[in-house]
Amino acid sequence: MTGISEQQALTRALIDTGYWIDTGVPGVYGRTGRFEAITTGFDRLVEQMAAEDGAEIRRFPPVMPTSVLIEAEYMQSFPELCGCVHSFEGDEDGHARLLASISAGEDWSRQLTGAALALTPAACYPLYPTLRGTLPQGGRLVSLSSFIFRHEPSDDPARLQSFQMRENVRIGPADEVAQWRELWMSRGVELLERLGLPVTLEVANDPFFGRGGRMLRANQRADRSKFEICLPVVAEQPTALASFNYHRDKFSRTFDIRCADGEHAHTACIGFGLERVAIALLHTHGLDCASWPREVRTGLGI
Amino acid sequence: MTGISEQQALTRALIDTGYWIDTGVPGVYGRTGRFEAITTGFDRLVEQMAAEDGAEIRRFPPVMPTSVLIEAEYMQSFPELCGCVHSFEGDEDGHARLLASISAGEDWSRQLTGAALALTPAACYPLYPTLRGTLPQGGRLVSLSSFIFRHEPSDDPARLQSFQMRENVRIGPADEVAQWRELWMSRGVELLERLGLPVTLEVANDPFFGRGGRMLRANQRADRSKFEICLPVVAEQPTALASFNYHRDKFSRTFDIRCADGEHAHTACIGFGLERVAIALLHTHGLDCASWPREVRTGLGI
Repeated sequence: MTGISEQQALTRALIDTGYWIDTGVPGVYGRTGRFEAITTGFDRLVEQMAAEDGAEIRRFPPVMPTSVLIEAEYMQSFPELCGCVHSFEGDEDGHARLLASISAGEDWSRQLTGAALALTPAACYPLYPTLRGTLPQGGRLVSLSSFIFRHEPSDDPARLQSFQMRENVRIGPADEVAQWRELWMSRGVELLERLGLPVTLEVANDPFFGRGGRMLRANQRADRSKFEICLPVVAEQPTALASFNYHRDKFSRTFDIRCADGEHAHTACIGFGLERVAIALLHTHGLDCASWPREVRTGLGI
Repeated sequence: MTGISEQQALTRALIDTGYWIDTGVPGVYGRTGRFEAITTGFDRLVEQMAAEDGAEIRRFPPVMPTSVLIEAEYMQSFPELCGCVHSFEGDEDGHARLLASISAGEDWSRQLTGAALALTPAACYPLYPTLRGTLPQGGRLVSLSSFIFRHEPSDDPARLQSFQMRENVRIGPADEVAQWRELWMSRGVELLERLGLPVTLEVANDPFFGRGGRMLRANQRADRSKFEICLPVVAEQPTALASFNYHRDKFSRTFDIRCADGEHAHTACIGFGLERVAIALLHTHGLDCASWPREVRTGLGI
């Protein structure tokens, strides 16, 4: 195994045992029905829990308006993770030049033009601008699932460029939103422990870019505005399976979302990385999911 | 309704009756749980029919290697529909320049670099390179579902930039593949008629780009290598709900896919546009899906 990291070995094992299909690009894999059964089973568990609380169900596509990411200051904080969609908008002569550049092996990317769209970097971003205005009494609760993009090619099977995320989002009065996040921190730990995963809850921070990001990272930890549920899989750091984020009035000021009393709402989101949960289960219970403990299989409906 | 086209009126109605959510970009909408129930119900019907034939289930992410699209000559045929993913790969000084351009309202797209990824333009494209080599006796049958991107902003609710497609793909000996496509043309008509849609099967062509594309479009019709199941909804042309494509050995020569006897395989794909089917049902049976005919609701499980 000389020269192959533990991460590369697990990726290879996921491919060889019929869960993933290599595409040639790190962090971009096809999923077999066998793998999808695990992610879909877990996704439904979290969606059902949200639906029992009365959540509205939403699905946004994997692309969203670039303008919303700019308003939300995504390009300030995480520029290196973005994926903007560029398209060819030229005429037939431009097309001939494009094909000539492709044939010659030149960089042809500058012959495309930036479009109005970017890949969705978290399931909740497209939601906030649609909530503009005054919320009903008590606020809102929304459950979303989406394919997410983050430009971070890696050998770590738990650090994908394109992956699925289930998020529940609570928008409303500050105290209710803060309590709701606390509730989901215990629910999240309990749910993952019930699936046999020995997880821990940790204070965390987002990977804010650059020197300026250092202070933002420290502030976020001091404020305890981000928690993660973690499990050591094969990465150097424990892998975060879920995160619990309290934004206070950041998004509601940006998109002018107000409570029934006219105050800016607070928002919080809790998100589960579906592939990370599936990989944690495969790493913990073994690569033959048919031999997993019965209660885990029953819980996931597989 | 002066100044509002029939297409715009239907889009507006889908939003007002709680199926879609406006994002501000034409052809990119959020879906409510009520809309997803229709697309998911139909998707399962087609997947089940494929699974009963022994299909392997696959899901590829909404991004795929650009190199595969180039090998498949997508940029030759449909350059204006592509979506290539560009990311920021600069340092802190580059980041400062990027933010300054964004603040100044300048075009900042050239400060990003073309990545190895493009948005998936049909569910089957990522599959072919993974089949390289010799097929088992009789070939393979695969069923895939995916979010698809096509850069064609439009007011027509049935012409989305980001939409879901269920495809079944047959790869094997020429005669078996051709017969399988014929089988699915009748199955497709029967399935949609059973849902109360008065559809027709038509010879069709892909929208090949430019003057050179005119001959390709004519050849494709003469060869009868593409059929569509159509229904007039609100577009000027009848809307294609499904397409049935016989590629002969085009993809198998590009990606060197061979039958057990060493000959290049033939391939065919049949695809259903999930949002188009849902819109056709809403247009035909009315915007209150709770009052649709019982057999339609039962068929879709809604």
